[in-house]
Amino acid sequence: MDLQQHIEELNQLVERENYENAAKMLLDLPDADIAELVSELEVDAARRIVTLMEARQQASIFGYLRPAMQAALASGMSRRQLASVFELMDHDERADLYNRLSESERWAVLPGLAHAEREDIRQLASYDEETVGSIMTSAYVTLGADQTATQALDTIRMEAPDVETIYQGYVLDSDRHLVGAVSLRDLLLAKPHERIEDIMVKGVISSHVNDPKAEAARLIARYDLIAIPVINEAGQMVGIVTHDDALDVTEEESTEDQHKLGAVARLTTSLSDATIFSLYRNRVGWLVILVFGNIFSGASLAHFEDLIAQIVSLVFFLPLLIDSGGNAGSQSATLMVRALATADVQAKDWFRLLGKELAVSLLLGLSMALAVSTLGYWRGGKEVAIVVSLTMILIVIVGSIIGMSLPFLLNRFKLDPASASAPLVTTICDGVGVLIYFNVASLLLNIPDA
Amino acid sequence: MDLQQHIEELNQLVERENYENAAKMLLDLPDADIAELVSELEVDAARRIVTLMEARQQASIFGYLRPAMQAALASGMSRRQLASVFELMDHDERADLYNRLSESERWAVLPGLAHAEREDIRQLASYDEETVGSIMTSAYVTLGADQTATQALDTIRMEAPDVETIYQGYVLDSDRHLVGAVSLRDLLLAKPHERIEDIMVKGVISSHVNDPKAEAARLIARYDLIAIPVINEAGQMVGIVTHDDALDVTEEESTEDQHKLGAVARLTTSLSDATIFSLYRNRVGWLVILVFGNIFSGASLAHFEDLIAQIVSLVFFLPLLIDSGGNAGSQSATLMVRALATADVQAKDWFRLLGKELAVSLLLGLSMALAVSTLGYWRGGKEVAIVVSLTMILIVIVGSIIGMSLPFLLNRFKLDPASASAPLVTTICDGVGVLIYFNVASLLLNIPDA
Repeated sequence: MDLQQHIEELNQLVERENYENAAKMLLDLPDADIAELVSELEVDAARRIVTLMEARQQASIFGYLRPAMQAALASGMSRRQLASVFELMDHDERADLYNRLSESERWAVLPGLAHAEREDIRQLASYDEETVGSIMTSAYVTLGADQTATQALDTIRMEAPDVETIYQGYVLDSDRHLVGAVSLRDLLLAKPHERIEDIMVKGVISSHVNDPKAEAARLIARYDLIAIPVINEAGQMVGIVTHDDALDVTEEESTEDQHKLGAVARLTTSLSDATIFSLYRNRVGWLVILVFGNIFSGASLAHFEDLIAQIVSLVFFLPLLIDSGGNAGSQSATLMVRALATADVQAKDWFRLLGKELAVSLLLGLSMALAVSTLGYWRGGKEVAIVVSLTMILIVIVGSIIGMSLPFLLNRFKLDPASASAPLVTTICDGVGVLIYFNVASLLLNIPDA
Repeated sequence: MDLQQHIEELNQLVERENYENAAKMLLDLPDADIAELVSELEVDAARRIVTLMEARQQASIFGYLRPAMQAALASGMSRRQLASVFELMDHDERADLYNRLSESERWAVLPGLAHAEREDIRQLASYDEETVGSIMTSAYVTLGADQTATQALDTIRMEAPDVETIYQGYVLDSDRHLVGAVSLRDLLLAKPHERIEDIMVKGVISSHVNDPKAEAARLIARYDLIAIPVINEAGQMVGIVTHDDALDVTEEESTEDQHKLGAVARLTTSLSDATIFSLYRNRVGWLVILVFGNIFSGASLAHFEDLIAQIVSLVFFLPLLIDSGGNAGSQSATLMVRALATADVQAKDWFRLLGKELAVSLLLGLSMALAVSTLGYWRGGKEVAIVVSLTMILIVIVGSIIGMSLPFLLNRFKLDPASASAPLVTTICDGVGVLIYFNVASLLLNIPDA
């Protein structure tokens, strides 16, 4: 399955405006691949090819397209074409697409849809994009508590073409409160006349419509679920989130956390879709804040002006020493941010972890002091070697403790621990490092009178 | 579902050695929660409680325990108890557990198992833990091409208790080559007498037993699969990887990448299970390497000794300027590493992205120059303000380009782009920053003769 080959073949067909054959060539590929291939084409050619396919396949391909491409394709389709794609798309994906259409495009689509579908789209599109509501689908199987296993299987057969997963059925009471769930596995294993209420699992694990979407993904991962039901404020079941959405959310959240750790604000698009200005906007904030953080280092240095003027060689070790503190601190912060994000450690563990961090950083500091002591001796003699080594130990320990504690501190104040980025930790450690270095130097070195 | 409450209740029961009631209290909780709760107890108490449960539930709980706890529980169980847990555990999980047992414990388990089970464990346990083979299970449904839909459903019913998922069935030829796959959904929708070979999908997307395990997870995510079949060197189907394993692998890989970005080597355990020495070992390598990297900055500074001695105030801006380059570079590296990891950009995109990076970093450099120019003026007058501002622009651009290019360079040499960690980028940018700063200063400032 070499996509590159397919791209070339596709380009040749498009050049000859042979859209029919292009569509035929793509037909049997997985829809995810078709989406990737047509995304390489001009929007116009892509639209001509996709609209030649069956409506159901068009809808599936739409689900795999990037947001920008989705909107571009949709905006050139006829009202009838678009309505039929909308009708067959996964409910969560079409709500996302709806949110990306212009007001006039929305009005082009809605009249072509049945009332229930319109309401469904409006409802799903109304949830904030950070919430479980924004990734759930309203197309799931509901079963009656008094159905027999055979009847339930018939229900599932009937609903299969329209729902996102048939592998879980949900049992609701008359107020749409969730009272139980049955897996298709249990249904198949049940005796034909067994009743659903006797087979179903009660106390089903569920997620709330306004929870952060990462929470639904976390529950799906923790309990190895295929789908998780979603409950609204009134306690009624309103949708499900499926395992494939959980995987996407997990990827997205990791991207967001990694970007934060690199002091980049949340990108709302992928990097390759991001504009120059949006990249600028997502980076400039932290950079400028850190400039002001660094003023502290500068001020500390100014404070030691006389010392520096007398022993200029002290400056040679400055980047080495303050960077080492920042590096050790970044390591600690990285470990803690990820451990907090994956619930491997919790806020209450800070004190217990502090002891471990002290021990680790002492060992690290000693190793690094060893590495720099010869350098110090060579560049500045015995006294400088002692100052540099001692400073290194202190800086690594203090840097590690700062880096390790900052994520917990942010967490304490309801901020995202991932904001304890390497650049932030480095900047703080630099300021502290300058103070440690020149104070140790002042104390230990024999300074000639100015 | 408040786990904290359960823990307290559980502790009280254990204190009174009332293991029976403790087991009864846990019985109806999800197995993932039981695993978490018993992990809070002493190993001995945990073992007493778990062994009171049904063998099938014990096996499931084992699957959710952390490796260290698994091995601890197992090593105290009787030969017969352990064999029955082994028999019922998911095949991929029991192979992992087997790998963690001591030689003598292995010999305690194996004789209690049937020959086929022993071979299965040995086979699965033999794959390298970075490969697809290590996360696959050998318990899946195989169907005959000439079966009818009704017969296939009967096969699935029969195999359901022993396989990991019944939602996909696989059709193999007599040499165990994969010729097709049928979802349970399609089976349910098929007419009773339709034959499998007419319903099945051919050209099934599959993964290779020796591929990196992240590859199977990537395919599951890309094609929204419930499971992916795994093929060996001989082209035979040997197992499947399921969606829940893909989710775990995705989390693991993100953790590894984040740690690398923070200059921490791969931890083989979770942070909370890591020993002081293993943490030391995973951090010291990069820290010491970076010390030697920083010697370059020191040497550059030594080169400008006279200039510094004459205008000491230049040093005040040193941390500010070199850190800004490192920060901008870290941002760029972070964005690229993640985009490469998620296949959002590819190696061939470097040149195209370079232009964008230049534009973004020019804007960033100008903004930051604006931020520091007043500071420069205030601290050192007009001339210093010009030097500092110009340096800032250059450093931010050069730092961004370095940070953005390094992941591509590593990728080019078949190294992991995530090794372009914030500390590494910072260290490189610091060295380059020192050179830029003092060269600009030498060129622009009127230096009194020494």
